[in-house]
Amino acid sequence: MLNVITPDVLLSHVHDFLSSGHEVLPLNQCTNRILAKDIVSTENIPSFRRSTMDGYAVQAVSTYGASESNPAFLFIKETIDMGKVPDQPISIQEASKIATGGMLPQGADSVVMVEYTDAIDDQSIEVYKSVAPHQNVIDVGEDIAINSIQRKKGQIIRPQDIGAAAALGIQNLCVYKKPIVGIISTGDEIVPISQKPATGQIRDINQYSLSSQIVKNGGSPVFIDNVPDDFDALYAACKKAVESCHMVLISGGSSVGMRDYTIDVIQKLDKSKIIAHGVSIQPGKPTILARLDNIPVWGLPGHVASAMIVFHILVRPFLCQLAGERNPPFYSKPTIRARLIRNVASSQGREEYVRVRLEQSGDHIDAIPIQGQSGLIRTMVQADGLITIPENSEGLEQETWVDVILL
Amino acid sequence: MLNVITPDVLLSHVHDFLSSGHEVLPLNQCTNRILAKDIVSTENIPSFRRSTMDGYAVQAVSTYGASESNPAFLFIKETIDMGKVPDQPISIQEASKIATGGMLPQGADSVVMVEYTDAIDDQSIEVYKSVAPHQNVIDVGEDIAINSIQRKKGQIIRPQDIGAAAALGIQNLCVYKKPIVGIISTGDEIVPISQKPATGQIRDINQYSLSSQIVKNGGSPVFIDNVPDDFDALYAACKKAVESCHMVLISGGSSVGMRDYTIDVIQKLDKSKIIAHGVSIQPGKPTILARLDNIPVWGLPGHVASAMIVFHILVRPFLCQLAGERNPPFYSKPTIRARLIRNVASSQGREEYVRVRLEQSGDHIDAIPIQGQSGLIRTMVQADGLITIPENSEGLEQETWVDVILL
Repeated sequence: MLNVITPDVLLSHVHDFLSSGHEVLPLNQCTNRILAKDIVSTENIPSFRRSTMDGYAVQAVSTYGASESNPAFLFIKETIDMGKVPDQPISIQEASKIATGGMLPQGADSVVMVEYTDAIDDQSIEVYKSVAPHQNVIDVGEDIAINSIQRKKGQIIRPQDIGAAAALGIQNLCVYKKPIVGIISTGDEIVPISQKPATGQIRDINQYSLSSQIVKNGGSPVFIDNVPDDFDALYAACKKAVESCHMVLISGGSSVGMRDYTIDVIQKLDKSKIIAHGVSIQPGKPTILARLDNIPVWGLPGHVASAMIVFHILVRPFLCQLAGERNPPFYSKPTIRARLIRNVASSQGREEYVRVRLEQSGDHIDAIPIQGQSGLIRTMVQADGLITIPENSEGLEQETWVDVILL
Repeated sequence: MLNVITPDVLLSHVHDFLSSGHEVLPLNQCTNRILAKDIVSTENIPSFRRSTMDGYAVQAVSTYGASESNPAFLFIKETIDMGKVPDQPISIQEASKIATGGMLPQGADSVVMVEYTDAIDDQSIEVYKSVAPHQNVIDVGEDIAINSIQRKKGQIIRPQDIGAAAALGIQNLCVYKKPIVGIISTGDEIVPISQKPATGQIRDINQYSLSSQIVKNGGSPVFIDNVPDDFDALYAACKKAVESCHMVLISGGSSVGMRDYTIDVIQKLDKSKIIAHGVSIQPGKPTILARLDNIPVWGLPGHVASAMIVFHILVRPFLCQLAGERNPPFYSKPTIRARLIRNVASSQGREEYVRVRLEQSGDHIDAIPIQGQSGLIRTMVQADGLITIPENSEGLEQETWVDVILL
């Protein structure tokens, strides 16, 4: 018999596991990876007070009241070329010509845009518009202050974080390793996809769909073996997998039938601890989760749609945990609000995941449940997402608003 | 002077461009790539009528009216092992033992689950529950029908599509090449990130943030060169870029200032056609788009936040076009509905993109505008997304509901 637990209890075990170690990568290979060390600024950006406009560095007070009809008159001290350290301080009624990105001279607190000035001669200008202190100027550290944390350990690295690292001259980042996830396909009837299945045989779909889910969620899939329904063969494959992988998925043989050896094999593995044999979800009830040190070992149902849904709902959070992801933003797992186009029945006592197709329908989105057994890959190909029917519900009525988990 | 066009007009030129060619990849390297040829089934899946349960293959009519108190009595014809082609046809009051995945014998139209049967002896069983025709059976082609299109050219390849290909024994897929996007950084003040900037110099942030945006959106970035503000140097870099890339981004020098050579260089390139010099968006007005045969050549503003926003709003659709993406599902560019926490002013005559941070606030999400000039990378690091203020609006009021474009 299965020892069934709820999906919530299973998911509470995510925190039993640690991340899979880290590595140092060049900055341009870090997009979408997870930071293993905070990005901390080691300098002020900018390191000098900088102009954001082409114009004249001034003391703002020298321009107060300036207008077209009553321009302020200022003396030019010098021209500050890009990259030059100005050597003339600015006092009242003085200005130095400055380019965008140029360094402000001592005493200047703002920059008048060149458009609001007229050169009278080489030594003086008229200013037609007043500026406020700090206008058109970036202060030392105003972009990035020294010793500030730009991005935290456990967060995903976005293009803007790469930009911040580049600004600080950081050429490498310490990121978590992609967890290596071993896949074992079981079943006498399973043949490699290169092979034409004889009657009663089927191609090894799960190896490919699960691999793709692993890739999509930041892991690195490794195919271990395709084993028949045989205890010793499965045990040997599992031994091999746990020696080289951070997580193991055994596809098929997770139930309690004659040919279901997964639970026995896992129990025989050294130091294994069964967390669940059976989860109260539909599809996906015959799911096994065990722990070997820091390795989650899963027995997944053989049906393609069940295996994919169990991966999406249950396996994925563990993969993210091993991958080092912590406290992702609330909007990182996308859902879409849609309206059910018909009643969906469900059995109490299990959380049900219904595959739906989405369709824009005037001002809202329709969720159209997909018919078909969990052995049919078509039901997943047609699906845009999943809706959840809670454990204690008998189903959802037509026109109910649902949050669709995008696949 | 700039020849300013609206972002909508600019984006209407997406369709001027073709995709960047295709390549054939092994199935396990196709996740998230774009299909260049439809996936068409060349066979029926399953190729035989299959049982989805362990039980007995029967004619449903033999079980009608069966119950605990009044079981149906059936004769066993044979045991159909997995992989075996049954040789005994089934008539009324007959049954053959069958395993999940087994092939239904001639005459049988359904499978009674083993749980609802009792073996009387080796030759006969009692059935306690009726089945309907087709129950616990998958028909020939019920999963995938021969000659049906499983996924279309121009669509992104998801794990379930990989699964469908595996089911069909398809070992390679024809996908669009990742567009190669060349990046040229311009500006006398720009230094490689490995270098400590002298006064007035800044590190080449855009090379890295743009590269990362390219990677994130399915392109393959190539850094061409870092050139000073010099016509000949920029011309040489552009020549090199257009020879080897599907798209070119020139960062900096896109305005009409003294040091802005981008427009002149692009005009001098063979067969170039300027689509826009100036776009009515803020930030990002001094954006250039030109076309050289099938190569979009962009002049992007040098300010880091401007360059990233222009990429996200304007460049990205062109990248997707080159990458072969067609008719993506309406939910593929995620936005989040949030409530503005304060007024945001805007100038009429330009579409404004305001960086916002998102925060869960009770039952809704707050959008918090981020202060700071477009030269500050910090404003992007702090941002979760962008909100759009339309061209003819003077701004948005506090508590307006906005659709936040996630970054």
